[in-house]
Amino acid sequence: MLLDATASGLFPIAPTPFTPSGAVDFASVDRLVERYLAAGATGVTVLGIMGEAPKLEPDEALAITARFIDGFGDLPVVVGVSAPGFAAMRALARAAMERGAAGVMIAPPPALRTDDQITGYYRQAVEAIGTDIPFVIQDYPLTLTVQMTPQVIRRIVEENPSCVMLKHEDWPGLEKISALRGFQKDGSLRPLSILTGNGGLFLDFEMERGANGAMTGYAFPEMLADVVRLQKEGLREEAHNLFDAHLPLLRYEQQQGVGLAVRKYVLMRRGFIASDAQRKPGSALTPAARDEVDYLLARLARHDGRARL
Amino acid sequence: MLLDATASGLFPIAPTPFTPSGAVDFASVDRLVERYLAAGATGVTVLGIMGEAPKLEPDEALAITARFIDGFGDLPVVVGVSAPGFAAMRALARAAMERGAAGVMIAPPPALRTDDQITGYYRQAVEAIGTDIPFVIQDYPLTLTVQMTPQVIRRIVEENPSCVMLKHEDWPGLEKISALRGFQKDGSLRPLSILTGNGGLFLDFEMERGANGAMTGYAFPEMLADVVRLQKEGLREEAHNLFDAHLPLLRYEQQQGVGLAVRKYVLMRRGFIASDAQRKPGSALTPAARDEVDYLLARLARHDGRARL
Amino acid sequence: MLLDATASGLFPIAPTPFTPSGAVDFASVDRLVERYLAAGATGVTVLGIMGEAPKLEPDEALAITARFIDGFGDLPVVVGVSAPGFAAMRALARAAMERGAAGVMIAPPPALRTDDQITGYYRQAVEAIGTDIPFVIQDYPLTLTVQMTPQVIRRIVEENPSCVMLKHEDWPGLEKISALRGFQKDGSLRPLSILTGNGGLFLDFEMERGANGAMTGYAFPEMLADVVRLQKEGLREEAHNLFDAHLPLLRYEQQQGVGLAVRKYVLMRRGFIASDAQRKPGSALTPAARDEVDYLLARLARHDGRARL
Amino acid sequence: MLLDATASGLFPIAPTPFTPSGAVDFASVDRLVERYLAAGATGVTVLGIMGEAPKLEPDEALAITARFIDGFGDLPVVVGVSAPGFAAMRALARAAMERGAAGVMIAPPPALRTDDQITGYYRQAVEAIGTDIPFVIQDYPLTLTVQMTPQVIRRIVEENPSCVMLKHEDWPGLEKISALRGFQKDGSLRPLSILTGNGGLFLDFEMERGANGAMTGYAFPEMLADVVRLQKEGLREEAHNLFDAHLPLLRYEQQQGVGLAVRKYVLMRRGFIASDAQRKPGSALTPAARDEVDYLLARLARHDGRARL
Repeated sequence: MLLDATASGLFPIAPTPFTPSGAVDFASVDRLVERYLAAGATGVTVLGIMGEAPKLEPDEALAITARFIDGFGDLPVVVGVSAPGFAAMRALARAAMERGAAGVMIAPPPALRTDDQITGYYRQAVEAIGTDIPFVIQDYPLTLTVQMTPQVIRRIVEENPSCVMLKHEDWPGLEKISALRGFQKDGSLRPLSILTGNGGLFLDFEMERGANGAMTGYAFPEMLADVVRLQKEGLREEAHNLFDAHLPLLRYEQQQGVGLAVRKYVLMRRGFIASDAQRKPGSALTPAARDEVDYLLARLARHDGRARL
Repeated sequence: MLLDATASGLFPIAPTPFTPSGAVDFASVDRLVERYLAAGATGVTVLGIMGEAPKLEPDEALAITARFIDGFGDLPVVVGVSAPGFAAMRALARAAMERGAAGVMIAPPPALRTDDQITGYYRQAVEAIGTDIPFVIQDYPLTLTVQMTPQVIRRIVEENPSCVMLKHEDWPGLEKISALRGFQKDGSLRPLSILTGNGGLFLDFEMERGANGAMTGYAFPEMLADVVRLQKEGLREEAHNLFDAHLPLLRYEQQQGVGLAVRKYVLMRRGFIASDAQRKPGSALTPAARDEVDYLLARLARHDGRARL
Repeated sequence: MLLDATASGLFPIAPTPFTPSGAVDFASVDRLVERYLAAGATGVTVLGIMGEAPKLEPDEALAITARFIDGFGDLPVVVGVSAPGFAAMRALARAAMERGAAGVMIAPPPALRTDDQITGYYRQAVEAIGTDIPFVIQDYPLTLTVQMTPQVIRRIVEENPSCVMLKHEDWPGLEKISALRGFQKDGSLRPLSILTGNGGLFLDFEMERGANGAMTGYAFPEMLADVVRLQKEGLREEAHNLFDAHLPLLRYEQQQGVGLAVRKYVLMRRGFIASDAQRKPGSALTPAARDEVDYLLARLARHDGRARL
Repeated sequence: MLLDATASGLFPIAPTPFTPSGAVDFASVDRLVERYLAAGATGVTVLGIMGEAPKLEPDEALAITARFIDGFGDLPVVVGVSAPGFAAMRALARAAMERGAAGVMIAPPPALRTDDQITGYYRQAVEAIGTDIPFVIQDYPLTLTVQMTPQVIRRIVEENPSCVMLKHEDWPGLEKISALRGFQKDGSLRPLSILTGNGGLFLDFEMERGANGAMTGYAFPEMLADVVRLQKEGLREEAHNLFDAHLPLLRYEQQQGVGLAVRKYVLMRRGFIASDAQRKPGSALTPAARDEVDYLLARLARHDGRARL
């Protein structure tokens, strides 16, 4: 089943579990899948920035993708295919789709500056992978340094019928969601799914501005799914209460560069994966940082029993 | 009285209050001073990035500085003197000190890359302003794009006896505080005050890592002063409880580009300043954003009565 | 007399002459003016990036501007007013115009990325300085990191009637000149003077693509004026012959960071200024570099007698 | 035979020839090899930035490498292995060495800023590819935005015994060569081959500063080899005369972004390759640019008969 503009809910950004010796830990992939589904995931995204994709051999990348696809069954799996060249992008995109992926995600290379450069890049990328593969725009200026206005996103969507989703992680970005939804109200933009990233730091309000869900990797996917659901049900206070309880930890996890180490550590403590090892070159938490995360988990457990270890 | 390495507590980053027509609102400066002192400020920083300094005429900048100096009495006033050229930096630094400032703050220009470029810049800046003016290093890579390792900060401190403080706002930056404090334990770095910025987003743990206080402009300086005090008194749980209650709003205020509009709006709602106007070119909150801030204030008021309007 | 879209010929980018002790050397300003006029200059630009403007006190900047205005008589003097804030930009622009400047030049700040940010910046700048001051867009991505498409330049020109000139120094940039001249042919862009910079590295072909002249500081303004004139007279071979003879030295002078030291050294050797001193922080040529420049001058003198010392 | 620190002469940066339909043109690879050898090449570098490497499938990249290795016989072939991840870097490096490459070239990723980040990256890269593969540092800040001081280069060389060469293309960079050669004179740096790139724009003086040769892709490798040879023979005037004759075209070819199109066009006109096609997304010369290149070739032919078509 192909990804389309009606996608919503929670698509966790999956980390790649490794054993301490650096091998891909497929048993942990299976556990991750099970826990994501139990948490309420409606899809999943693999081989993103937080999936340590550049450290994977091409065969490994496809094997991991296939394992997630098997586990998620009918639910869509989105595959990150950003690459410095279109040959590699095309090869991975076509291979992933053949194995049953629902669509791909494409981030712009950091050198892009002008509006025309950005829209031109997406045209070329679509030409490279083929117009039959649904794709997600990743809009993440904090890391990628590429700034897309709402008008540029609209141009990409309008010029490429296979564009079905925006992974929105501009920061600040609430007004961008409102602008895009405004374009749709005035008829100048066709339907587009908007899932939000950026670690979930503004998920509480992003849902109120019109997002369809979350696509991010916070180590408590249950909270992300719940906030998305509560907001859709109109239970605003409940959504914010839950979100606020998690915010101290979420904020800690959302640190650039350190975030993945925090995330894997918490996922390991929670039994989602067997080890928090990163393939080299990786980063690890200092003892002081581990103590801080443990402290945040203990404090969170008072509000959300699922944080009890 | 000159700033020295024993400085601690809370130095709010002061905004510059304007009237809706764009004039400097000196009555609001007086009110700000009064409220900062009541909140527990032990000093103040003016003409920083959030003080709209580049929009001020030189005479206005000095007049504002003088007003804060008068209001703060014996407490130290730090003046931001970052400038594209050393002539302007020197002129402002000397004039501010003559009027009674305690020291100046210098941010590195964005073009600096290598360790030698950064340390060379600070040597030249000190030569320009004179070795008799105590200065603060501003380490803020998120906005300035200049990355200083702990080793580079140590070199700047060691090469320039007039360096007395680090405004620490690297992100993530907890390990940097630990590294600098480690240098001091092993005798390779002399005493240095570390006040933390970055909107206060990690103040809870920064104090535990060895910071001496906060230098940032969150619109509830009372909370910043309290967290600093509680951590110094060893009341960890109380510090985190208070911090966590504020985090949803603090996180909202800490958005790049939008932050000053949020901050001025909250300060206006709280009666610290008469208007949230920014001098042109400024940004303003949309109605949707104002509603969100009001909602966050109302939620905060349940935990901290000082947020009641 | 105000600058307008008919401006053409050679506007040298003037360095600021200093004495070895760092004082402004006004006698050398007078000599520069005399030599520029003898070389065929049709105007001059002061306080540009190569004019060490950020090292000047505001009074000095105005005094230098006034001296050039006096010396150039009826010929236009353009004043660089780029500044981190609109207050300083406005103050300098208004003061310079009062003293008789013909227009100002505005470079975009390096943080600008999207098309809308760039055009928005120029609207705000014009609002700040006033719509009555003719201005020049400086398009210099190599140093400023801001990338303007021909479409963005057209938008700036169309939105701001006081825009009369483009200082074109994109690299590569020949196609940009052709694109802008194409807009004028198809009626979508009003008349606009295009003078080219970038050290003159492509002046030979820029004139053939439609530039109106040069605005750059190569230490042989005679060559720049001659190439502009020869190309206008249709003497293509003569223009290229002269240009090619100078290219080895011109290329050497056009090095980022070192260029000003080379330029001032050659101007000093040629008697245009008394000293090649830069105000601190400056750079100086190593003995090896001076030997290389002397060698290039000696080689050039075989083709162009004006290089004889 | 492995690359070592005695390497010198001319290592052309080879383009990848394509047919107009986008297939790799192996017949043109053979012609290129033949012409490079006739021009005096002492080695060759493949899969560099100008080799359109990111557009190649992994199998194609290896096939091209193998073809050059076969053609160059005993002469060293250096393979560019820069990649966003160490998995891909390792895979390509090991495979290329197995097929007979002499060494690899590694460029730093653009995000690196501090001295420690840069040296840390090279340590990790060497750990990834293995300490048995000789490697070349690519120092190209104009495109890569990474700035390495001479001290940082020395640290990389000293920390990694397998580092045997610097591809020097800093700009300006003459003083960097002198600084590195100075380190060797004072005994603080072991022998290191320095070949220079940057299109050859300063090859004339780079040889005089101590470079061992050129590693760049100017479409007249004969000139590069001759200038290297003449300088080594002490024939300074002859070297500069030849260099200066080529400088107008060389300068035209050295334009960022357009350079490869110029280079392939000239190589095609000279019979080195059958077509100037770039694999998509590529750039092509406009008719105006082609005319300019033809004009430059015709002018060059008056001084250097090899430019006659």
